[in-house]
Amino acid sequence: MFDSQSKKKENSVTEALACPIPKNDYEQILLAHGGGGTLSHNLIQSVFLQMFRNPILSEGHDGALFEIGQERVAMTTDSYVVHPIFFPGGNIGDLAINGTINDLAMCGAIPKFLSAGFILEEGLPLDNLKKITDSMMRAAARTGVHIVTGDTKVVDRGKGDKIFINTSGIGIIPAHADIRPLRCKPGDVIIISGRIAEHGIAIMSAREGLAFDTTVISDTAPLSDLVQNMLATSKNIHVLRDPTRGGIASALNEIAATTVVGMHIDESAIPIGEQVSAACEILGLDPLYIANEGKLIAWVDRHDADRVLEAMQKHPLGKHAAIIGEVVDDHHGQVVMTTSIGSSRIVDMLSGEQLPRIC
Amino acid sequence: MFDSQSKKKENSVTEALACPIPKNDYEQILLAHGGGGTLSHNLIQSVFLQMFRNPILSEGHDGALFEIGQERVAMTTDSYVVHPIFFPGGNIGDLAINGTINDLAMCGAIPKFLSAGFILEEGLPLDNLKKITDSMMRAAARTGVHIVTGDTKVVDRGKGDKIFINTSGIGIIPAHADIRPLRCKPGDVIIISGRIAEHGIAIMSAREGLAFDTTVISDTAPLSDLVQNMLATSKNIHVLRDPTRGGIASALNEIAATTVVGMHIDESAIPIGEQVSAACEILGLDPLYIANEGKLIAWVDRHDADRVLEAMQKHPLGKHAAIIGEVVDDHHGQVVMTTSIGSSRIVDMLSGEQLPRIC
Repeated sequence: MFDSQSKKKENSVTEALACPIPKNDYEQILLAHGGGGTLSHNLIQSVFLQMFRNPILSEGHDGALFEIGQERVAMTTDSYVVHPIFFPGGNIGDLAINGTINDLAMCGAIPKFLSAGFILEEGLPLDNLKKITDSMMRAAARTGVHIVTGDTKVVDRGKGDKIFINTSGIGIIPAHADIRPLRCKPGDVIIISGRIAEHGIAIMSAREGLAFDTTVISDTAPLSDLVQNMLATSKNIHVLRDPTRGGIASALNEIAATTVVGMHIDESAIPIGEQVSAACEILGLDPLYIANEGKLIAWVDRHDADRVLEAMQKHPLGKHAAIIGEVVDDHHGQVVMTTSIGSSRIVDMLSGEQLPRIC
Repeated sequence: MFDSQSKKKENSVTEALACPIPKNDYEQILLAHGGGGTLSHNLIQSVFLQMFRNPILSEGHDGALFEIGQERVAMTTDSYVVHPIFFPGGNIGDLAINGTINDLAMCGAIPKFLSAGFILEEGLPLDNLKKITDSMMRAAARTGVHIVTGDTKVVDRGKGDKIFINTSGIGIIPAHADIRPLRCKPGDVIIISGRIAEHGIAIMSAREGLAFDTTVISDTAPLSDLVQNMLATSKNIHVLRDPTRGGIASALNEIAATTVVGMHIDESAIPIGEQVSAACEILGLDPLYIANEGKLIAWVDRHDADRVLEAMQKHPLGKHAAIIGEVVDDHHGQVVMTTSIGSSRIVDMLSGEQLPRIC
């Protein structure tokens, strides 16, 4: 082990000449540890899963599933550190509510109760806090969830960044739902609920220093209603995942790695808006790795795929839904994409960080 | 409304001559908004409770109580921003586990499932993170709770402070427990489970710049086992509260304000260690306002008080338990203390902040 950052300085000449090999051993936390890519996963595996080992945590799900009395319950948590806190299409408040609603929805659960924990930086304008909590209230009301408990801490100026919000949530899983990564199997059809990469591009457009003119707005939205419609259509929806940090590439890779199947996707089938596509080209970003906050990927038994797709397209949040690929009994643990020009490429998990603090 | 901080500078001469009247209208968040005193409560009332209004939130409890199927469930959340992250007797990790276990215990619940959300500052030594998660694991195992879901975010250097942790928790309330602020009534006896102010003094001793020699260690500990022993002894334990931020003064005032009864306490009956007492005298701090992290206050029907006290004293975490006062049908909403020298004084809620970032 070594201090990757100080070493970088010493060896800058050597490193400039060498092809950089991603390193996994670090003595300090890097921004990339929060990026949703390989480093994030290594940290989670080597520290958190190792330390807190238990059967519920090891399921590789977006949330924890357990029973309370006769009910199947899902529990999730997420901290939000998005920068800037206000962006086109939303703010950290509705993002924090929708994000946790979505994690519950990805377990097939109907979201019921949320907690909200605030870490405020000294000097935050009270007006900002009021706007943010107002958005939280509206987002919660939209889905019928209640914010039932909360906490507020304040840190000195320069020891935080305006506001961080943690939301944790509890949802009830209906009897007919059985959504688990391990249900994914070869033959399953992969459906995405709409156009990708909108949240990430909206954040970039709002971020200081990136003078970038676009009307792309964040897709932040609660997916629980869409999911319940889908579940009403088919019992054979096997896995759901919202492709947030790390984009659809990371979500596909996570499921491929957990279930040891192969994913095959078709680039030309992936829905993407013109402006987002143009922005990605200008900025040199790959939209597959850019965060979404109101989209889901569904792995569905091939016999039910058309029916589920149709149900999705009838919902306002699924009108651009499309089949983008299938699960294959080949290249296990990997995601392979047929590109628009017909060649094949491996879509790997990003090692580091494309856009820090995206959610 | 006005900006209290800039105004203070302009009027410093006038203000130096005047008796400072605490102000409640601020345009910005101050450190004192997180101190657990009047400003904290105003913020909670005027922003959070106002905005997220619902019957569960309005109970004034340490956690939310609701039903899932046939079971009564408690849910709580707390973010931990303690500075420094390592201190005599513990670190931010076991504090985060014990604190949320205790909030559940104060609802009479048996803690079951916890979530853990980490906000890491770029540059945090990985060794520190491992020590902290190791403490969390041990603290969880001690009480038999499982950390079932988690989340990690990383913020850039200078936009956080090493590590902040949010823990949310779910517990099951046994059939015989009915712990609610509103059950508090005149005649109830007030019992504290042990010596006060140890956590706050331990933090101060560890804090940079306070060259202060003491062997006081934080009392951070999980109170759920003690609480279940108490509940097995009596059905007439009406309210429980752990006097964390703002100390026992704030906890007593909160219950007095919520239930509109009067509290009378006897200074000489309050257990306090010699070193803590000496430290408070040297530093000019009132121990009634200093945080505890392994103590509880119980409001118990007078007929059962001796039995409950005895059960507490048999438990390692209650061996210094003592009756410190009673609930009276007088000076409603206020806490009045008979001092050691025999006079009476009102123990008010602190307006601002005695020790920021204590938990």
